[in-house]
Amino acid sequence: MESYSKLYKEELLDRVIPFWLEKSQDTAYGGYFTCLDRTGKVYDTDKFIWLQARQVWMFSMLYERVEAKPEWLAMARHGAAFLQRYGSDGQGNFYFSLTQSGAPLVQPYNIFSDCFAAMAFGALYKIDPKEEYAVLAKKTFQNILSRKDRPKGKYTKTVSGTRDLKGFALPMILSNLTLELEHLLDKQTVDELVPGVIREVMEVFYQKESGLILENVYPDGSFSDSFEGRLTSPGHALEAMWFMLDLSKRFGDKALMDKAVRIGLDTLEYGWDKTYGGIYYFMDVKGHPPEKLEWNQKLWWVHLETLVFLAKAYEMSGSKQCYQWFEKVHDYTWEHFRDKDYPEWYGYLDRYGKIQLPLKGGKWKGCFHVPRGLYQVWQSLEQISSAKATG
Amino acid sequence: MESYSKLYKEELLDRVIPFWLEKSQDTAYGGYFTCLDRTGKVYDTDKFIWLQARQVWMFSMLYERVEAKPEWLAMARHGAAFLQRYGSDGQGNFYFSLTQSGAPLVQPYNIFSDCFAAMAFGALYKIDPKEEYAVLAKKTFQNILSRKDRPKGKYTKTVSGTRDLKGFALPMILSNLTLELEHLLDKQTVDELVPGVIREVMEVFYQKESGLILENVYPDGSFSDSFEGRLTSPGHALEAMWFMLDLSKRFGDKALMDKAVRIGLDTLEYGWDKTYGGIYYFMDVKGHPPEKLEWNQKLWWVHLETLVFLAKAYEMSGSKQCYQWFEKVHDYTWEHFRDKDYPEWYGYLDRYGKIQLPLKGGKWKGCFHVPRGLYQVWQSLEQISSAKATG
Repeated sequence: MESYSKLYKEELLDRVIPFWLEKSQDTAYGGYFTCLDRTGKVYDTDKFIWLQARQVWMFSMLYERVEAKPEWLAMARHGAAFLQRYGSDGQGNFYFSLTQSGAPLVQPYNIFSDCFAAMAFGALYKIDPKEEYAVLAKKTFQNILSRKDRPKGKYTKTVSGTRDLKGFALPMILSNLTLELEHLLDKQTVDELVPGVIREVMEVFYQKESGLILENVYPDGSFSDSFEGRLTSPGHALEAMWFMLDLSKRFGDKALMDKAVRIGLDTLEYGWDKTYGGIYYFMDVKGHPPEKLEWNQKLWWVHLETLVFLAKAYEMSGSKQCYQWFEKVHDYTWEHFRDKDYPEWYGYLDRYGKIQLPLKGGKWKGCFHVPRGLYQVWQSLEQISSAKATG
Repeated sequence: MESYSKLYKEELLDRVIPFWLEKSQDTAYGGYFTCLDRTGKVYDTDKFIWLQARQVWMFSMLYERVEAKPEWLAMARHGAAFLQRYGSDGQGNFYFSLTQSGAPLVQPYNIFSDCFAAMAFGALYKIDPKEEYAVLAKKTFQNILSRKDRPKGKYTKTVSGTRDLKGFALPMILSNLTLELEHLLDKQTVDELVPGVIREVMEVFYQKESGLILENVYPDGSFSDSFEGRLTSPGHALEAMWFMLDLSKRFGDKALMDKAVRIGLDTLEYGWDKTYGGIYYFMDVKGHPPEKLEWNQKLWWVHLETLVFLAKAYEMSGSKQCYQWFEKVHDYTWEHFRDKDYPEWYGYLDRYGKIQLPLKGGKWKGCFHVPRGLYQVWQSLEQISSAKATG
């Protein structure tokens, strides 16, 4: 455990964080470049709000929890200033993307831009307690809650009344975001929200028959036999399960922990590619051809979120099965995603584990899943080691 | 040539068309099933307007040009009745998809639904000259023209004024649709439209420096160095080149033919996977990582459209290079996409030519590219054979 812990810590602090620190800062216009090639060279200058906000969160979190390094604080502030100035429209909705200089490119159709912005300013406030950050985080969070039943607003393309499915992603993110913003919310809000999001994740979207989490269900949780209704994303479910583990720890809910461990292991068993290794991106729960052409690709975030789940599940439950899976997923992930010659990891492999896109960052991959995953695993493994040392 | 011609004809009439005739008709609710597994079993019942309309067109066209078989007429009418009853909203805009029984699922955000509907009713009118078909085709065509500068209407997610790119797909489809509807349009409309769409395809979207057609450009045709601006789809460009060949034949424009042949061959040279064979789905003209994760997959329609281009280009130009490419693409396509054991072809291969989804039809693959491609190639090769026989 100790050697694993060291591995994750050093990879984070000696290779991954320096990469983003050195390569991503846009000193001309503010914000971060995220479209970086294998060596860190910028190949596109658009600014994607998900990734801008996640990077602010990342550097704030590291400053708070690892070390108060001035350059980490400066990096977080650098992205936050750009987000504050250009990120949202007049109504406090965050755009999806901007040009390098901050002109809005894609409208605020995507509520996750708002989720990650709230998360960013919530974390920044912890290390730099300016009232404006707290206000922005809280206002954005309220806006998310008010938009949550129709997250795409006027950009919704489904016809209301025919097949009114709701998506897993939002309750899943809210289950994490509520804890992330706990220091800014009053106790009553948290106490009201948490049981609801846990219920959504663990009952409404969880399908007893298959033992899996579905991506889209009817409002009452019933199954829709359609492309959307049959869709499951193992990585999404596994990420949600570690959010549940965090909630179970925070609120001392042992039953929730047990259920999260079980669903996570069942998901992994189901989503693991028994022929080539790695975890599928999307699957159809009835085994029909998924609509998404990238369904069998192996994505970095899926594997990192799985490692976080397994490390936490092992830390909290001591389950041997979690440890065995951890070693198996660790081996696959480090072997296939890590770039031995240049820092940061590859993001996209094909089914066979071959590199599919040679980028280190892009429209969807930024300074987030790799460093957050390395940090979380490092912490869990260190907990286990120190518990053993003192036990 | 004669043996190739026979191969395409028999594949069309003995295997592919019978498959759709037997497996796709929804006798309970009308319209067609298109989500068919390897053997033709229905795995999803949603009705996608693109595919409903394209199948009406397909059976109408075969009835007109190949043989007046009553079951083909009945099949075309069967789909048309469903489309007429459920396909569009109160303003004559066609939905994107419906449930099995015809309830609207996805709003009319996609103008290609309208394009294929107009094409369907235009073709049906040729074999079943009911005034309502002509009216519907013309009205839909006018609606397309009125929507063409903002095809997604209120569902447009890009912010106006920042990076106002226009897409290649619409002018490309219009270049085919105008000829498809020529019997319904007055000469003046055609004479006004045709030079415009040719100019769009061959000058505005054609980029001299690279010799390629871009998917998105600024209104004046200039290049946008962005994910969308750098995107090129070889299959799209090759399909457009055979539309241009058809226009060059119709209007006796030899220069257009020469240019279309050259662009098509350049595109093929660029888009061909030199390592594993087959034509890439998407590429980035600057060689950066494309945004689309399916970029290196090999899709059925890309290969069929390429074969149509090559057969026509060889028929019209006699170019030896076209013939050599035809044999090469023919070999790859028949070897990898054709299912030796069951009728109809696979649609989705990975980069290495392995079957990626075992379906014969889905949300995007219906009774269209395979049979249209087989028909077009058969016709071109037969022309060449008979010209040789009489020459």
